[in-house]
Amino acid sequence: MVDMRFAKGHGTENDFVILPDPDGELELTKEDVRSLCDRRAGIGGDGVLRVVRTRVLGETLAPAARTAERAEWFMDYRNADGSIAEMCGNGVRVFARYLLHVGLVDSDRFEIGTRDGAKGVTVEANGDITIDMGRVERQGVSSAGLARGVVHGAQISVGNPHLACEIDEPVADLDLSRPPELDADDFPEGANVELYNRVAPGVLDMRVYERGSGETRSCGTGIVATAAAATPEGQSATWRVRVLGGECTVELDASGARLSGPAAIVAEGETSLI
Amino acid sequence: MVDMRFAKGHGTENDFVILPDPDGELELTKEDVRSLCDRRAGIGGDGVLRVVRTRVLGETLAPAARTAERAEWFMDYRNADGSIAEMCGNGVRVFARYLLHVGLVDSDRFEIGTRDGAKGVTVEANGDITIDMGRVERQGVSSAGLARGVVHGAQISVGNPHLACEIDEPVADLDLSRPPELDADDFPEGANVELYNRVAPGVLDMRVYERGSGETRSCGTGIVATAAAATPEGQSATWRVRVLGGECTVELDASGARLSGPAAIVAEGETSLI
Repeated sequence: MVDMRFAKGHGTENDFVILPDPDGELELTKEDVRSLCDRRAGIGGDGVLRVVRTRVLGETLAPAARTAERAEWFMDYRNADGSIAEMCGNGVRVFARYLLHVGLVDSDRFEIGTRDGAKGVTVEANGDITIDMGRVERQGVSSAGLARGVVHGAQISVGNPHLACEIDEPVADLDLSRPPELDADDFPEGANVELYNRVAPGVLDMRVYERGSGETRSCGTGIVATAAAATPEGQSATWRVRVLGGECTVELDASGARLSGPAAIVAEGETSLI
Repeated sequence: MVDMRFAKGHGTENDFVILPDPDGELELTKEDVRSLCDRRAGIGGDGVLRVVRTRVLGETLAPAARTAERAEWFMDYRNADGSIAEMCGNGVRVFARYLLHVGLVDSDRFEIGTRDGAKGVTVEANGDITIDMGRVERQGVSSAGLARGVVHGAQISVGNPHLACEIDEPVADLDLSRPPELDADDFPEGANVELYNRVAPGVLDMRVYERGSGETRSCGTGIVATAAAATPEGQSATWRVRVLGGECTVELDASGARLSGPAAIVAEGETSLI
């Protein structure tokens, strides 16, 4: 057992265990990820962000990630259950904050490699971090069965599948203790479901049920999907989206979506868990 | 903001943020404790264990804690909500493991100071840690209202108040999502409620609802209260008590109760949270 360096950070209370592994020497098993993310027997987190140089990954990168080669640092993201995910909108913000925090980058504009390609990062004057989330794809309408009845909304892909539904009752009153029932033809691999209200001009309140995780405090791609659902097709818009864990801003235009929000590193040290 | 050293550890998945403060220089506010214990924006834990030399506390120790002066190290325990608690049976085991881990003690038998006085510690051959929990006080019978109806049990003090109830149905089937309703005359300050089954000779299965915390994975004093409730008054007994987070052993005799179980330190580092 060798003690492993780690950090812990969060973006709007979506939290991560960060593992610096610049030369790609770490064999990170599902079991390792589960024990790191265990909230009582481990450190605790919604996922693990392994920090590795893109060039050491070489030919293991899938075609979809090829643009990642432009970025010096690659975010190897794992869900808390040990599974691999392409992207995580809050994770990449926390990843960027970590690179800045430990001095692995020293610029206000850089790129981060992900399995969904290179993502542009801008550090804002107030310290918030903006991620270029790329294009948002509208795929029509669908519906979800909740405890309170069926809701209808927009089927949207932000790299991963979403159903974003505007509802009349305040989202604070919703019961999201059970998974929404989705149309399996529309969502063969499931989806994250967002419920939102327009609470003021340019301001949305949102709650999210993530497939495989249940209700979470925040979901970066879900925030982008919600902003897109609230924007008439072909138009540009800027939305503040308030979630249980804080607030982000989404800018949408013809070039795609940019997600801005806070990210913090709260602890660093060594762990004996892996 | 000065980076503060911390460790994280758990005993049967009752987990703690440990703060070394040998000279008692840290002013630990309720807000500090809450942000450290926050499971998404912080490090996460059921409580904080401040590690301070007993002699620097001097006259601030209450009469009940006077025997603590025998111990070099004092466990200043705070609940996750920032409130102060006298004792924590799993916490003191994790505290002992921390002292051993960082070399603040190097003996297999020592004492730890708590607000409930000095607690004897023995390190077992298999690495488990045994804590002398002192006398267990039987205070009669009482009852609690659960989702499935009213249950009756033994009112027991292990420094803190408990109601330990043997039930017929398997504890695995219980709904403990809501706080049990207690008799306010019997428990003016509330109580932890344990529900248990006898599953084999010498073996109990237990679940616990802790006042102020909800259902937890384990509760050291609750494990002792349950073992006492299962033992005829005046007799000696040894029980294995299985909880959601693992298993402990309780030895009861005329001198009092000893609680044995595992304890692990899983991470160490610095935090910017306080």
